[in-house]
Amino acid sequence: MVFKKEEYQQRVVRTKQLMQEKGIDLLIISHPANMNYLTGYDGWSFYVHQCVLVSLTQDEPVWIGRGMDANGAEITSFLAPENILQYADDYVHSLVKHPMNFVTDFIRQQGWDRMSIGVEMDQFYFTHRSYVELEKGLPNASFKDANALVNWVRVIKSDAEIEMMKRAGEIAVKVMETAYRTIRPGVRECDAAAEIVRAEYAGTVNFGGDYPAIVPLIMAGEATKTPHLTWSDKPFVRDEAVLLELAGAYKHYHAPIARTMFLGKEPPELMKDTAKVVIDGLRETLAMIRPGVTAESVEAAWRKAISHSTIVKESRLGYSIGVNYPPDWGEHTISIRPGDLTVLEPNMALHLIPGIWYEDVGFEIDASIYITETGYELFYDFPLETYLVK
Amino acid sequence: MVFKKEEYQQRVVRTKQLMQEKGIDLLIISHPANMNYLTGYDGWSFYVHQCVLVSLTQDEPVWIGRGMDANGAEITSFLAPENILQYADDYVHSLVKHPMNFVTDFIRQQGWDRMSIGVEMDQFYFTHRSYVELEKGLPNASFKDANALVNWVRVIKSDAEIEMMKRAGEIAVKVMETAYRTIRPGVRECDAAAEIVRAEYAGTVNFGGDYPAIVPLIMAGEATKTPHLTWSDKPFVRDEAVLLELAGAYKHYHAPIARTMFLGKEPPELMKDTAKVVIDGLRETLAMIRPGVTAESVEAAWRKAISHSTIVKESRLGYSIGVNYPPDWGEHTISIRPGDLTVLEPNMALHLIPGIWYEDVGFEIDASIYITETGYELFYDFPLETYLVK
Repeated sequence: MVFKKEEYQQRVVRTKQLMQEKGIDLLIISHPANMNYLTGYDGWSFYVHQCVLVSLTQDEPVWIGRGMDANGAEITSFLAPENILQYADDYVHSLVKHPMNFVTDFIRQQGWDRMSIGVEMDQFYFTHRSYVELEKGLPNASFKDANALVNWVRVIKSDAEIEMMKRAGEIAVKVMETAYRTIRPGVRECDAAAEIVRAEYAGTVNFGGDYPAIVPLIMAGEATKTPHLTWSDKPFVRDEAVLLELAGAYKHYHAPIARTMFLGKEPPELMKDTAKVVIDGLRETLAMIRPGVTAESVEAAWRKAISHSTIVKESRLGYSIGVNYPPDWGEHTISIRPGDLTVLEPNMALHLIPGIWYEDVGFEIDASIYITETGYELFYDFPLETYLVK
Repeated sequence: MVFKKEEYQQRVVRTKQLMQEKGIDLLIISHPANMNYLTGYDGWSFYVHQCVLVSLTQDEPVWIGRGMDANGAEITSFLAPENILQYADDYVHSLVKHPMNFVTDFIRQQGWDRMSIGVEMDQFYFTHRSYVELEKGLPNASFKDANALVNWVRVIKSDAEIEMMKRAGEIAVKVMETAYRTIRPGVRECDAAAEIVRAEYAGTVNFGGDYPAIVPLIMAGEATKTPHLTWSDKPFVRDEAVLLELAGAYKHYHAPIARTMFLGKEPPELMKDTAKVVIDGLRETLAMIRPGVTAESVEAAWRKAISHSTIVKESRLGYSIGVNYPPDWGEHTISIRPGDLTVLEPNMALHLIPGIWYEDVGFEIDASIYITETGYELFYDFPLETYLVK
C-alpha cells in the first residue's frame, strides 16, 4: 500500500460526509483514480467493468471486479478480504449478461436496494449500459449524479500526496532532459518517444517511475498546430519546432512538463515573439497565485498579461492534477478559466499550460505547482526558454 | 494516412450496410479505435468527448471534437475539411454545457433529428450523460444500441491490416527478447518496464513502434496469482517466477505476447507440470484452428486437451485483436469460450492466452494469430517454454 491505512480511511470518511450533504446513501465508483484513492487498488483492469461501493451503513468500501483481478485487489488495497468480491468471467464482453447485474444482485442482498444511489454519470469507465442495468436491477432505488464527487474530495492533497507529486516532479526533470538530449534532426520520432518513456518508467535512483496517464505527446513541424498527436517513425527535420507534453509519474501521481524545442540556431521571429509573450505571461500569472484567489482570477491575470500582444488563447489555462490513470491526468475539478469560482487553498495542485497551436506558430510551456500557505511551490524548476539544438 | 483513402471508404460502405440491416440511419461513434478505423483519425484526445458521425445520407463521415484537436484530424484523417467540426473549449469538463449539446445542434441543422440513431451504449468513451444529452437534444429521434457494430466490421482484416499486425509481431519479438535480457534478480521492476516499453516504442529499424493499448504487465513472486498488475520499484528476487504480458504495436495494430520467466535454475515441480500442460494444450488447440470452426469449438479443444490434468481455466481462452487504443487491445467481438458461435474466417485475428493465476502457481503463454484459407499463421514465432535465468 502506498499510503497508511488511516489515510485511506480518512478519505472514505470525507467522501461519506460529502455523500450525506448530497443525500446519497450508496456511492458506486468506477473511475480508476477514484477507486485507487478510496482503496489503494492499482491494476490495469479498468478495461472491464469494475467498481468500488461506499455505503453509509458500512465502514469499509467494497471492491467488485473480475474474478482474475480479485487477487490484485487483495495485494494492492487496504480492504479486508470479505470486502473484495469477484464476478465470474462469463460476464465479460457478454451479449447476455452484464457485470452490473452482479453488482445489483449484491446490492439487493445487502438490503441497499431502496437507497439513494450516486453514480458517476459522465465518467468514461461508467457506460450508459451500466446505468441502464443498475436501473433495471434496482427498481426501488433512486439515482443521483455523483459525477465528480470523489474527484472533489481529491482536490486538496494530503502532505503525503504532495510528497508523491514532488517525486513525480523529480522524474519530470529527468524526462525532459532526456527529450532535449535525444531529439535531433535525423532521429526518428519513435526513437525519441522510446527514450522519453524509458525515462518516465525508470524514474530516479530513489523513486521508480510509473506510467503517466498520457503517453508522450510530440508534435514536430506541421503538427505544432495541434496539441494531442503522439509520434510517427519519421525523422525530425532541421529548423523545425518540436512541442513536447510529457510527465513524471510516481505511484500514479503526476507532474506534467511541457516545453518547446527548435532544431536550429535561430527560431523564426514569430516563434521568438510568441515565446516571449507566453513566458512573460506565465511568470506574471504565477506571481499572483496564493490561497484565497479564485481559479478565474488566475486566468484573468494571464489574459491581462498577454493583452498587449496579438495572442488570444481561447482554451482554458490549466486544471487540477493529482493521482490518475489513462486517458487523462486532469482531475476534472478546477479549470483555470472564466466562470470557475473555486477559491485556491493550500495543497491544491495545478497544471498551468499556456499552449499556442496556431496554423503558423506553435509554442508550449507549463508549470506544475501546488498552493502553499502563502503562495505556491513548483513541483520542479526547469527553464522555460525554448531549447535550441544548434 | 496509414491506409489508402479507398480502404477507409470501403470501411464506411461496409458500416453503412450493417446500419441498413439494423435499421440505423445515423451512427454516433465514440470508440477511439472505431473512429480511427472509419477516418484514420489518430490523436490522444479521447480524454474529452468526441465522435464520428456516419449518416446514410452522406458519403463521408463527420468528425466532431474539441477545437484544438481539429488540426490533428486534418493531419491524420482522410476527411475533407468541411467534415471536421470543432466545439469551443468551454464545453470541456463544464458544469453547464456538454459536448453532446454541440453534436445535437449539428444533427438538427443537418435535418437528421428524426432519424433512427445508433450509439455505442456499453463503450467506455460514451458516457451515460452523453446519452442523456443526446436524448434531450433530439426528442424526435429514436435511439438504438449499436455497441459493437463497427467492432464487428473490423473483425475481418484487410490484407493491409494483416501486414500492420505482422510488423507488430516483429516488434513483439524484440520486446520479449528485451524483457528476457533485462529481468534479473536485483534489477528494479520499474527499470525492466522502462527497457521493455522502450523496445515497444522504438520498434524495428524498418517499422517504428507505437504505444500498445495496455502498458507492460509484469507480475513477479506473489503477484503471479493475478494477471493485471503493472510494476513497482522493488527489485526482482532470485527463484521467483515472472509473468509478462506485453505487445508489439504498429500504427495501433497489436500483436500481444505473453511469456513466463523463472529467475533460477529449476522451477518448482508444480510450475513445471503446469507449464507442460498449458504448452501442450495450446499446441493441440492451435492444431485444429482453421476457417469453418467456431470460437467455442476452439475453447472446447483446449478444455479437452488439458482435461487429463488438474488445471481448470474458467476465464475465456482468448479474443479478437486488431487496431486499438487504451485501455484495451481486445476488440470486444469474438470471445473464445462456450456459447460464442462465431465461425472463423480468413483474416480474422485472435489472441489466445491460456493464463493460470492460482494462489500457488502462475503461468502465462499466448499465441497471436490470424486465420488463413487453410489454417492459421502466427504473427510471430517465439519459444513457449519458460525462460530460465540461471
